[in-house]
Amino acid sequence: MPSPRHKVVIVGGGFGGLSAAKALKKADVDIVLIDRRNHHLFQPLLYQVATAALSPSEVAWPIRHLLRRQGNVRVLMGTVIGVDTEAREVLLEHGEREGYDSLVLATGAQDSYFGNDEWKRFAPGLKTVEDATAIRRKLLLALEAAERESDPERRRALLTFGIIGAGPTGVELAGAIVELGRSSIKGQFHTLDPEALRVVLIEGGDRVLSNFDKELSDYTHKALEDMGVQVELGEMVSSIDAEGISYGKRRLETRTVIWAAGVAATPVAEWLGIKADRGGQIKVAPDLTVPGLPNVYVVGDVAKVSRADGRPVPGVAPAAKQEGQYAAKAIQDRLAGHEVEPFVYKHAGDLATIGKSSAVIDFGFTKIKGWAAWWLWGIAHIYFLVETRTRIFITLSWLWIYLTGQRSARLITHGEATSQKPLDEVDED
Amino acid sequence: MPSPRHKVVIVGGGFGGLSAAKALKKADVDIVLIDRRNHHLFQPLLYQVATAALSPSEVAWPIRHLLRRQGNVRVLMGTVIGVDTEAREVLLEHGEREGYDSLVLATGAQDSYFGNDEWKRFAPGLKTVEDATAIRRKLLLALEAAERESDPERRRALLTFGIIGAGPTGVELAGAIVELGRSSIKGQFHTLDPEALRVVLIEGGDRVLSNFDKELSDYTHKALEDMGVQVELGEMVSSIDAEGISYGKRRLETRTVIWAAGVAATPVAEWLGIKADRGGQIKVAPDLTVPGLPNVYVVGDVAKVSRADGRPVPGVAPAAKQEGQYAAKAIQDRLAGHEVEPFVYKHAGDLATIGKSSAVIDFGFTKIKGWAAWWLWGIAHIYFLVETRTRIFITLSWLWIYLTGQRSARLITHGEATSQKPLDEVDED
Repeated sequence: MPSPRHKVVIVGGGFGGLSAAKALKKADVDIVLIDRRNHHLFQPLLYQVATAALSPSEVAWPIRHLLRRQGNVRVLMGTVIGVDTEAREVLLEHGEREGYDSLVLATGAQDSYFGNDEWKRFAPGLKTVEDATAIRRKLLLALEAAERESDPERRRALLTFGIIGAGPTGVELAGAIVELGRSSIKGQFHTLDPEALRVVLIEGGDRVLSNFDKELSDYTHKALEDMGVQVELGEMVSSIDAEGISYGKRRLETRTVIWAAGVAATPVAEWLGIKADRGGQIKVAPDLTVPGLPNVYVVGDVAKVSRADGRPVPGVAPAAKQEGQYAAKAIQDRLAGHEVEPFVYKHAGDLATIGKSSAVIDFGFTKIKGWAAWWLWGIAHIYFLVETRTRIFITLSWLWIYLTGQRSARLITHGEATSQKPLDEVDED
Repeated sequence: MPSPRHKVVIVGGGFGGLSAAKALKKADVDIVLIDRRNHHLFQPLLYQVATAALSPSEVAWPIRHLLRRQGNVRVLMGTVIGVDTEAREVLLEHGEREGYDSLVLATGAQDSYFGNDEWKRFAPGLKTVEDATAIRRKLLLALEAAERESDPERRRALLTFGIIGAGPTGVELAGAIVELGRSSIKGQFHTLDPEALRVVLIEGGDRVLSNFDKELSDYTHKALEDMGVQVELGEMVSSIDAEGISYGKRRLETRTVIWAAGVAATPVAEWLGIKADRGGQIKVAPDLTVPGLPNVYVVGDVAKVSRADGRPVPGVAPAAKQEGQYAAKAIQDRLAGHEVEPFVYKHAGDLATIGKSSAVIDFGFTKIKGWAAWWLWGIAHIYFLVETRTRIFITLSWLWIYLTGQRSARLITHGEATSQKPLDEVDED
């Protein structure tokens, strides 16, 4: 059924896809936004769901709800399995097809285990709401199992938490796990000692937060150690199993491992039948289109884009947003017969929290660290949240944790509604 | 290892077990509270999680956290599989044993399908947090599938929701599903009509809320119909399958069925090697102990207790609380050599909401209905919530929904962290 208006199909409701849809609000086009999930996820705060500070519904909102005031967009929950660029159709599961005039691919990244996919079972990553609640369950169950365990070796392994990768996610998780563990144990477990909790952060590079200025890396390293995090640099992981991690010549006995070491682009290059770059990314033209496919835009983590100085545009939310907005403008400019300017990335800065009351921010021209950075980090994140309700509730949640130390979302829940054995997880892993 | 002090083991962290533990706060005893879950669940509001008004962490709190200020209690997350009444030991999974001097069994009820356990797959009940999120997923996925469906018959079945059982849970779910469906569809689904949503409430008895005064039943029946709920009385369900429900001589085509028709006690009688009453309950002595086992108390849904007028004590939260408190007092009275008075149940009243702004309350001596009852219902529930934080957050959540109509927790999430196919659920069911 041909559309009378120019039809834009957007695949992916993350930062890239959502900002593209919103930037087309006043455009004379019909938009279909397709996502496998019904919700947009505010990934920068996902680690707080994994560590029981926030609830899933505080960081994820139905895409339909976010776009409810935009008449020219139809939201479709569905799984895209390919693109027919000849027929200009997106292929969905169950044989459905959705025709397009312009296509925006914004499907994001997924965890990459560098060819060791068998590690995933023992070391989940943190990309989805389910990942976050699964990690929360693992963390809390380890404490419960430690409370019941009488063997000191086994108890030690249960109270040890390994994080692989010391980028912002790894650093934020390490700090938050120390705080969750200590605040949970204190006064609530009779046989556990808060000081027995051990968080080990393993990084292959020679410093934490390698994207940041060296001074901030060093500051973060020291702040983590002051909190009690054991930082292991320059160590490559050689295996992960149910009992622990082998790295360098060492072995860490732990029942809980989290993967924060690497991501790869979703397999969009396969859909288009083109060759992907390293990490699955697609090297796009200066207008973010796929070479040879001038009506197919790629934005966000899948797009390989360079900055003016030659460095790659990082895989962060602001970059995906800027690219989504750019693609929307390029589509409109083309429809209006205007010339399309090349995409230029504006880097606002890098930021990471280290724990309650400490953070680092690298603006390039200036650097901030400590509690001032932490407050700025908090205010910035609340500002960037999409909805008023969420702003109010997250502010209150944080304030509550700040004042009382109580984490509200310390629930161990299971996937299957009929599951009768919440404890098996620990034994199986 | 014998305890120097009298040792009380409580099995179950619901209303009965938790109130027993709290009532023993100042007692000179050692308490061990064992639960399969790490959280206490505020079941009266669970239907609001199933209908996306509240988050799981707003109605469930870690038991450890609730008892953190009580030095004489140790919380153990574990699954009880039996009781050795000779040795006075509770048997846990994996061979662990926990000795007791006094035992309080407060394990609650589970869904009962009256011998048709195969229905459970198609008609989940509402007893756990996982049940609630599973129902939420089913409800929201049905709307998503309807939006994609072009066949009018199939679409009609997807937009039809069947609830079996018109007690308070069934009535509350029916009202909340109408509101969730209409508010979700309105402006957010392009091809669906809010008026096409159909909620059918099927009840075997001759009126809704059969425990309430007839006048309130009639009022509720009319209020439900005014909201658009189709009420079917005096109809016994003969089968439930993936395509719908057969009841009486009729057939309802629906993809979403919820079971609110009956519960049975958890299999505590088996643990004790005694004969259970109808519905798995244990007929206890006037002091809530098991006949022949004067140090084993049974409280809550498992205990079969009569009121002064001969009617049974209902399976509601206030009854479980009173029984738990009574058991705690009886244990202390015995230890002090005092005489133990028999348990007397005080019935505060029955209450149920019908939807936004309407409820019924039956105090016995007086009846309230409409918006006054609704406000009283809300205030009473906020008052009975356990924690200050929850009171604040639930009040704000309700206020937000009341003022804006936006339900915050409309997330479709999956059990398995690695699941890639959130849509399959609909096809399978």
